[in-house]
Amino acid sequence: MLSKNKIKFINSLFLKKNRDEQQLFCAEGEKCVLELLKTFECKILVATNDWLLSNSVHAEEIIIVENSEEIKKISFFKTPSPVFAVFKKPIFSFDIQDLKDDLTILLDGIQDPGNIGTIIRIADWFGIRNIICAEQTVDVFNPKSIQSTMGALARVKVHYTKKDSFFKQLFSSKINIPIYGTFLEGENIYSSNLSKNGLIIMGNEGNGIAEDTKKYVSKKLFIPNYPKGVPTSESLNVAIATGIVCSEFRRRL
Amino acid sequence: MLSKNKIKFINSLFLKKNRDEQQLFCAEGEKCVLELLKTFECKILVATNDWLLSNSVHAEEIIIVENSEEIKKISFFKTPSPVFAVFKKPIFSFDIQDLKDDLTILLDGIQDPGNIGTIIRIADWFGIRNIICAEQTVDVFNPKSIQSTMGALARVKVHYTKKDSFFKQLFSSKINIPIYGTFLEGENIYSSNLSKNGLIIMGNEGNGIAEDTKKYVSKKLFIPNYPKGVPTSESLNVAIATGIVCSEFRRRL
Repeated sequence: MLSKNKIKFINSLFLKKNRDEQQLFCAEGEKCVLELLKTFECKILVATNDWLLSNSVHAEEIIIVENSEEIKKISFFKTPSPVFAVFKKPIFSFDIQDLKDDLTILLDGIQDPGNIGTIIRIADWFGIRNIICAEQTVDVFNPKSIQSTMGALARVKVHYTKKDSFFKQLFSSKINIPIYGTFLEGENIYSSNLSKNGLIIMGNEGNGIAEDTKKYVSKKLFIPNYPKGVPTSESLNVAIATGIVCSEFRRRL
Repeated sequence: MLSKNKIKFINSLFLKKNRDEQQLFCAEGEKCVLELLKTFECKILVATNDWLLSNSVHAEEIIIVENSEEIKKISFFKTPSPVFAVFKKPIFSFDIQDLKDDLTILLDGIQDPGNIGTIIRIADWFGIRNIICAEQTVDVFNPKSIQSTMGALARVKVHYTKKDSFFKQLFSSKINIPIYGTFLEGENIYSSNLSKNGLIIMGNEGNGIAEDTKKYVSKKLFIPNYPKGVPTSESLNVAIATGIVCSEFRRRL
């Protein structure tokens, strides 16, 4: 059974401030929790007896509840799943040399938790191992982001940094990699030369790549709408654009 | 000012049942409302005076509110925008012959309102004019879907139908088009022959294309993960997969 104190403690983790302080984060949903259990240390696992009987799991503390209804008290979702977990936040190490031969994504102020989660799932699919989050980018450990990752966080490392210091480090390391960004006035991505390594910058939902980030981009790309010249949406959703860009890079290999 | 009755009426439209009965739907956000105003008849427009002064709009009834805070009473969102609109639901006409030379998407039980909205925005970007929604597919007129479309509904027609009667009609019409679907055991999409016309079936978030839909698919496609054989997420989010598939079809043209 979930004690009042436990409910209070878990609910407090909905706030980034408390997640940072406790170095913990929450995950829900069977698929997501099972994926994360493979990689991360589980501090508290809340589950129904039925669920525990059919899944062999390891956690510091296991709390058995009567039914999914009881999980509602700590769930972020209207229809909670039979399992809820509190994990220790991973400490992702990061070496600028990792960028040399690899494709890496830099998120420049993504705001929507669903978008960042979906982007991590895309990175996982296309074998991108590191995501750099510049200032103003939403916390990947919030419940909605974690849900959207569907467990991909077990394989993709997310690093929060200030972009100016990141680029300073990148340029002084002398690993000379192309830096891509998507722009409405960019080059047609389908016919562009794309390298197998490099940094792909994806901008904020409403404003795109920030003014003070543009100077770092060495190649502007554009996903052409169809047919050319016909009125259409102003842009694609940023997660969709990320999916198409990553697919284009990997298609060439 | 918003009267109590008006608030009650607008809030009732959050339910599909009432939207269907009244043949109305709601939209929020400046970009979204402005796009929809170009195409759809607006029944009620609720906006701040400032917003109305800088936008020339037409509606059956215009309600001026003090500030965005007042819009909170009818808004689906935590941070409402300065404009909220109730539109008459469009009656989309549909002729099976429209599928002959065009690319069309069939949604086979998409459940997430954000996903269907994003898919309509993708369709708009790639010049896909018709989306067929089979049974179990979420209502595109719910506020979250409308928000995700970012106004693309002004250019993409969405049709709800039962899939068996749709396919019966399609096959008896003798417009012989390829029917594509994405499957984990499908053919590598990057090297597949893709036609410029045809039907693309996208399946449910958790279960993919339904068992009783599979028989209609004439060509199974697969978006390859990278690198081959390395463990990754089980699948891509359905909107992301739709974006990549549409991009691949249009790239060839």
